[in-house]
Amino acid sequence: MRIAFIGGTGEEGMGLAYRFARAGHECVIGSRSRERAEAAVAELREKDDKLALAGATNDAAAAEAELVVVTTPFDAQAATLPPLADALAGKLVVSTVVPMRFAEGRASLVPVPEGSAAQQQQALLPRSTVVAAFQNLSARKLLRGAALEADVVVCADDAAAKARIMKLAADIEGVRGIDGGPLANAGLVEGITVLLVAINRAYKTQAGIRIAGV
Amino acid sequence: MRIAFIGGTGEEGMGLAYRFARAGHECVIGSRSRERAEAAVAELREKDDKLALAGATNDAAAAEAELVVVTTPFDAQAATLPPLADALAGKLVVSTVVPMRFAEGRASLVPVPEGSAAQQQQALLPRSTVVAAFQNLSARKLLRGAALEADVVVCADDAAAKARIMKLAADIEGVRGIDGGPLANAGLVEGITVLLVAINRAYKTQAGIRIAGV
Repeated sequence: MRIAFIGGTGEEGMGLAYRFARAGHECVIGSRSRERAEAAVAELREKDDKLALAGATNDAAAAEAELVVVTTPFDAQAATLPPLADALAGKLVVSTVVPMRFAEGRASLVPVPEGSAAQQQQALLPRSTVVAAFQNLSARKLLRGAALEADVVVCADDAAAKARIMKLAADIEGVRGIDGGPLANAGLVEGITVLLVAINRAYKTQAGIRIAGV
Repeated sequence: MRIAFIGGTGEEGMGLAYRFARAGHECVIGSRSRERAEAAVAELREKDDKLALAGATNDAAAAEAELVVVTTPFDAQAATLPPLADALAGKLVVSTVVPMRFAEGRASLVPVPEGSAAQQQQALLPRSTVVAAFQNLSARKLLRGAALEADVVVCADDAAAKARIMKLAADIEGVRGIDGGPLANAGLVEGITVLLVAINRAYKTQAGIRIAGV
């Protein structure tokens, strides 16, 4: 499957691209700047030069991909996504975005009028199917390459799209995809990331969540 | 330790009272009606007649306890707590409350002007120290009595109070207390309960959360 990462040059985009490429998918890292995208690809190729990775502008990445993962900062998505709406029409779009701010060393959720970053993406891309997932994975652990100890809670209104992303999550070693209900629940999962930031700070770790009893 | 449960006749209050009594604490189940409180105690005594349990009005339970656990429904706390403010002054109050509503078979968070049920409790009880914990434990599993597979994320602004409740959480077999940061994070933990309701529905289970990597 060809997967594009919009705003993919940050740790989260690079980490997911690395893992999905290792699982055999063709990954395109998108950026406003093609040069920065290619630099990110070169960095990942140092880990493994046989991975199917390419760099492109966000526009080109969105146009060519079957599946698009949004890994921009929250503040950037409202400007980045609308120009891509035509290219993303009819496609599955995965929101990994967490509307988080830091003040006095503490993380908190930014209130989003639509309810969550994922629901805002759905409002910005009305002809696409938005699925929320991967928000709680440690980008550093993704980049490090060892098996993770974490579940990915997947929220979507379209059952087939949700099932597809749950399956994709399981391509990351150690990860399970868990059905977290409708897209309206995405904000609850985004909030877990803020909580993990506090836990990471208290325990000097990179924590993840597991759903026990499933 | 003598622990009172305000609005303790529901599943959550009874389940926690059962577990803490088993761990050797003296537990008082409070209710508006002393008769209902005593009926809840009688029900728990059928599981084990040697447990240190008593029933009382919320007023009497609050006055006598060292530690108070609020297990009322969210809608009831704004009326229930202010009359107890004097009795609870200087005491540690644990919020287990989740501001949740059900519509069309789906759970969602009720917006709380103070940010969370726990922060509202702190506003209602300004002379008490509120700690948020235990929101994500399955009441049914607590009542069933087997070891749980779940962590309790504890949020509080007072470090000593937080440490005390983290230790109390570990009195429940299979449970760890995890430092979740300040009381301002309580809403994120309350939200996890709503997510678990969706997961329980999808998987026909009673799920819990584990923090991996701690």
